[in-house]
Amino acid sequence: MIKSFLLVVLITCVSFCYADDGYRLWLRYDKITDAALLQQYRNQISSIYFEKQSSTLSTAKKELLTGLQGLLDKKIVDAKGSANSSIVISIKSSPGNNNNEGFQILSKGKQIFITASSDIGALYGVFHFLRLLQTHQSTRQVSITSTPRIQNRILDHWDNLNRTVERGYAGISIWNWHTLPDYIDQRYIDYARANASIGINGTVLTNVNANAIVLTKEYLVKVKALADVFRPYGIKVYLTAKFSAPVEIGGLKTADPLDASVQDWWKKKADEIYSYIPDFGGFLVKANSEGQPGPQTYNRTHVDGANMLADAVAPHGGIIMWRAFVYDVRVQKAEENFDSLNTNSKESSIASADRFKQAYAEFKPFDGKFRKNVLIQVKNGPIDFQPREPFSPLFGAMPHTPLAMEFQLTMEYLGQGTHLVYQAPLFKEVLNADTYANGKGSTVAEVIDGSLHNYSVTAMAGVSNIGSERNWTNHPFGQATWYAFGRLAWDHELTSEQIADEWIRQTFTNNSNAVTTIKKIMMASREAVVNYMTPLGLHHIMATGHHYGPGPWVDNLGRADWNPVYYHKADAYGIGFNRTATGSNALAQYQPQVQAQWNDSNTCDEKYLLWFHHVSWSHKMKDGKTLWNELCSKYQEGIDTVRWMQKQWNTVKNLIDDERFKQVQMFLNIQEKEAVWWKNACLLYFQTFSKMPIPPNVEKPNNTLDYYKNLKFPFAPGIGGNN
Amino acid sequence: MIKSFLLVVLITCVSFCYADDGYRLWLRYDKITDAALLQQYRNQISSIYFEKQSSTLSTAKKELLTGLQGLLDKKIVDAKGSANSSIVISIKSSPGNNNNEGFQILSKGKQIFITASSDIGALYGVFHFLRLLQTHQSTRQVSITSTPRIQNRILDHWDNLNRTVERGYAGISIWNWHTLPDYIDQRYIDYARANASIGINGTVLTNVNANAIVLTKEYLVKVKALADVFRPYGIKVYLTAKFSAPVEIGGLKTADPLDASVQDWWKKKADEIYSYIPDFGGFLVKANSEGQPGPQTYNRTHVDGANMLADAVAPHGGIIMWRAFVYDVRVQKAEENFDSLNTNSKESSIASADRFKQAYAEFKPFDGKFRKNVLIQVKNGPIDFQPREPFSPLFGAMPHTPLAMEFQLTMEYLGQGTHLVYQAPLFKEVLNADTYANGKGSTVAEVIDGSLHNYSVTAMAGVSNIGSERNWTNHPFGQATWYAFGRLAWDHELTSEQIADEWIRQTFTNNSNAVTTIKKIMMASREAVVNYMTPLGLHHIMATGHHYGPGPWVDNLGRADWNPVYYHKADAYGIGFNRTATGSNALAQYQPQVQAQWNDSNTCDEKYLLWFHHVSWSHKMKDGKTLWNELCSKYQEGIDTVRWMQKQWNTVKNLIDDERFKQVQMFLNIQEKEAVWWKNACLLYFQTFSKMPIPPNVEKPNNTLDYYKNLKFPFAPGIGGNN
Repeated sequence: MIKSFLLVVLITCVSFCYADDGYRLWLRYDKITDAALLQQYRNQISSIYFEKQSSTLSTAKKELLTGLQGLLDKKIVDAKGSANSSIVISIKSSPGNNNNEGFQILSKGKQIFITASSDIGALYGVFHFLRLLQTHQSTRQVSITSTPRIQNRILDHWDNLNRTVERGYAGISIWNWHTLPDYIDQRYIDYARANASIGINGTVLTNVNANAIVLTKEYLVKVKALADVFRPYGIKVYLTAKFSAPVEIGGLKTADPLDASVQDWWKKKADEIYSYIPDFGGFLVKANSEGQPGPQTYNRTHVDGANMLADAVAPHGGIIMWRAFVYDVRVQKAEENFDSLNTNSKESSIASADRFKQAYAEFKPFDGKFRKNVLIQVKNGPIDFQPREPFSPLFGAMPHTPLAMEFQLTMEYLGQGTHLVYQAPLFKEVLNADTYANGKGSTVAEVIDGSLHNYSVTAMAGVSNIGSERNWTNHPFGQATWYAFGRLAWDHELTSEQIADEWIRQTFTNNSNAVTTIKKIMMASREAVVNYMTPLGLHHIMATGHHYGPGPWVDNLGRADWNPVYYHKADAYGIGFNRTATGSNALAQYQPQVQAQWNDSNTCDEKYLLWFHHVSWSHKMKDGKTLWNELCSKYQEGIDTVRWMQKQWNTVKNLIDDERFKQVQMFLNIQEKEAVWWKNACLLYFQTFSKMPIPPNVEKPNNTLDYYKNLKFPFAPGIGGNN
Repeated sequence: MIKSFLLVVLITCVSFCYADDGYRLWLRYDKITDAALLQQYRNQISSIYFEKQSSTLSTAKKELLTGLQGLLDKKIVDAKGSANSSIVISIKSSPGNNNNEGFQILSKGKQIFITASSDIGALYGVFHFLRLLQTHQSTRQVSITSTPRIQNRILDHWDNLNRTVERGYAGISIWNWHTLPDYIDQRYIDYARANASIGINGTVLTNVNANAIVLTKEYLVKVKALADVFRPYGIKVYLTAKFSAPVEIGGLKTADPLDASVQDWWKKKADEIYSYIPDFGGFLVKANSEGQPGPQTYNRTHVDGANMLADAVAPHGGIIMWRAFVYDVRVQKAEENFDSLNTNSKESSIASADRFKQAYAEFKPFDGKFRKNVLIQVKNGPIDFQPREPFSPLFGAMPHTPLAMEFQLTMEYLGQGTHLVYQAPLFKEVLNADTYANGKGSTVAEVIDGSLHNYSVTAMAGVSNIGSERNWTNHPFGQATWYAFGRLAWDHELTSEQIADEWIRQTFTNNSNAVTTIKKIMMASREAVVNYMTPLGLHHIMATGHHYGPGPWVDNLGRADWNPVYYHKADAYGIGFNRTATGSNALAQYQPQVQAQWNDSNTCDEKYLLWFHHVSWSHKMKDGKTLWNELCSKYQEGIDTVRWMQKQWNTVKNLIDDERFKQVQMFLNIQEKEAVWWKNACLLYFQTFSKMPIPPNVEKPNNTLDYYKNLKFPFAPGIGGNN
């Protein structure tokens, strides 16, 4: 009782605080500021009643009490029966439906009923109900039914055992392996709360560039400790499986997936893991890609490798997420073609080697060959999480093999830890893309949610942007992308605006001026980063290694397809990668209707122009400008948008807390500087080919190309060795 | 006005919070809980008046208003004159005394006067006054005059530019070099507040294992940004100077300190630094030690190296802190003697090679040869921050060269991030040690504060235990050691108990049961760690590399003096390092009176026995036990003390906030486990020599020696590469 009282006092206070360090994310339960609405909520809500008990329901009850007592600033009674309780939480399990994570929120008279088929559904319902209050929705005539469209909604942590985070820009890993299992950081609990509140139900704890040591007993007891924390929140843990683990930690001479001793080792390892963690989710595997071992190391196929692991976890209900991000085996071919890449010929002579094509080429032939508990996890685009990519041609191309979507929340190519880029529009652009796999309207979303091909298992993964920074994501707006990922994995029909709206209200304020302004900034932010980094279909022109800043001139890396020049192919004639039939013919991997959208440089959506065409500097764009002038103008437009974002942000100064206001203000200054850097560096470099002047509407670079080429960032973040 | 009001509300609330994440350290300004005292303070204090203005005084005013409004839960008026102000802050500068950082707090009638000779003195006075309130002292009859005994009170950060922290156990570096200078983390400001509150006035930002890149322009503008934040708080920034910087970043062919171009490079570099940071403190240098370059690389001396740097910074008022932690040049000699170390002979044959002796041997001959702005920075003991060491024989041996004390706050050898060890008793033991340099009563403290030898410049350095963890130090009690370091650097006459008392009251509670109990735990903690790790004068028997856990058996490292066997010399006869005249004769580096204390194994203080003597397993101890039985009993005593600490801690459960209570409880569980680990591993190993049974009062090890030898910790924290 005293504790509850203190809690109320605490939460009341926080609403008056002049500073917010961002730790609470969108789970801020400060007192409702709209007095009339507060009164209405208070009149309606004074008690709650949970019909059943379980660890998950106890978690739900604690959250609901904390939330209501904070938001309403009044003591809420934990009632003994449903008759007069304001909110009644029930589990109505129906036979064969106990995997249903959905919920219903229904008002009847003054009462509100949150009903679910499972305990976790009830927790999701509780979080959703709290969200209604946080976003100032009416609770009088509520009738909401919600069920996730995708089964496995997963965060992938590229976290190494030494706590570095590959492509992490928010401090180090929140997993403190050294002090586990004995020390349970409060962060682990709050991580679970945050994820459950947006429907995320899985977490891959370790980097896809894997370390076998996590599969040893010493580490499995640590993994178990985390799994025990996450279980009441409906979150399963997964690990990355290093394909060579049987050799590295098992003492075997081979990791050949067709070797019986190897198969046996994985089965026993799975049994061991499940003995610690009965609801272990399964493995995520990056095999035969960027130096990782895999079945091809033993002249076996992806099918051989994935199915072996699938068989090991199948008896326990586990799944295998096998990544389609592969570009290893064709190294030689790509290198053979490297000379031709450097000839600056009008038409590239390579027809076969194109990294764009490899995932499709390697996986499409295996459609239908994988075990039922295998998903192929495909990055949203064919290359690598660029500011804008066409959707991967694999989507729609494997009707008999469940495909999982992989988005990258951490902003490796989007300004890393300091740029404001709300990624929901990027996610939606991909999800809404039409594959035409079963005719018009066969969207990527319908592939992923299983409805198009009747997949029996579905998944969406987001590469985490979470780290040890107090506010989790370094940039306060990184939280919005995490939030949007969870919400879209639950329901991909939500719009970016809807998600932004509810995130802002929960995270900052319900003040309508602030909500409107911040939403405008967020909605403009993704196109801004495309424009100031890679407009018109440019891609993969970043600096080497850390990927921080521009490096379109890089041409000396060990593999052809690591070099920016491989991707933009700028020459005296023009710029862009010819992926039509006269080039690499990657376009042929799409359905004819998709090809038709993109295969003519005169009709191709200009957003994708340089993805598919090598066009001349004088190419006439739809607005009448030359390609060169359009390119210059787009870079300038990106900068101008950032400056507009700065001005807009300044108007919310007194509408939100001072601490986060200043943080974002400082970050926007960095973003503006770096947008100018991208424009200057890229235009000065491309100008060496176009030989054309920078048009008058575009600011002249204030440094030389050599200046930009010589910038060095030996300690840029995000390149943690997994040693 | 509104902001102040909100501030009051905030601070009021916090006092009711059920959880405290530890971020505020000892600067918690929660409402005074003693109602009578609160009323008394409120009656006395309603307004403040600052007679002058400056950035430091504005900082002081903000802190005083925040603190008073929080503690008293009332609006405090920023008055326009002194006549009726409750607190009057004045600067009375006296000619030639503007370096005086001291302050006076004097009550006259109902008024309180805080008077100083400098702005920073006023800030220190303000913090001290707030401390009086935080610790529930009377403010009615106050007459306090306080002046620091040591001029330069400095934290040394072993922080690398890639944010790893060498020997750091609290996350990564709080310096986010990547986002500096544009992004100013709130932590930088709170770091400055915390340090100023305990009188720390300098910070060495970078690791002694230095990287020259911090001296490039790109990084100096980042250093400047931090210096600008710290300046109002009286904190100077220092950097570590990589001796080879003129070659690495200057393009010179040599870093020879007698080369004119090298001297010129450093002068110009110093000029450049001071152009950014006019009050730059100077350089800390680790030269010719553990692989670092130095003057000996060019056949020059420490004097040549230090004086060159001193000349570069002297025109700007900078100082050089040249570390005496050297053990490089005698590698060969030590290795020559390595065979003899492994003979397990009763008397070691090495008389010359003893790492113990090297600092004295190298530096004593140079006494008086250094420039006036050079200090030689000496670790407290002759080896390396062990749980207990005799004081370094250099203290008292260099009357003509200022010696700075170097303590290690980060607990490399004291349980690292998870053990509760309050280090003030360790610091005091060293400071109170009598060097007999000028006869009886020539304490180390008097050497360091300059009073014994009339040093014109004085310094005390603490190797920081601060990292990115929300509570700064990982273990909440790490904060106490940071606090104690600052307080002792200001006034080494304070007792460990006094400092613990005021820290507990500020950090946790004024509840007298809690204060008494927590103080007992803290005061017992240092002897506990000595007993469960290295009792009776054992030292340097930790595991290799990460130094986590015991490794007394290690005998295969590249250098003799890296191996634990070099230090304990256990053999069939006995154990310990003979440093008397029949051994390495390191004792001869001390004054005769000190030698007399330690040179007879029958009269030597048993705390130091094995530091100086190789004694038989059957050696009769003062309590009548054999050495072996005493050793076993001491290990057990260490464990028993930790278990007692656990029980004591459990009694404060409802007297402090739940979050920190649980944190410490979990950490104590780890500490108990690890104490048992140390005992088992060490006794099982030493038993292979003693062949004696573990006595009945000591718990039998529940694992084999091989088990302990085979433990591996590939990802133990604290070994960050400075790459």
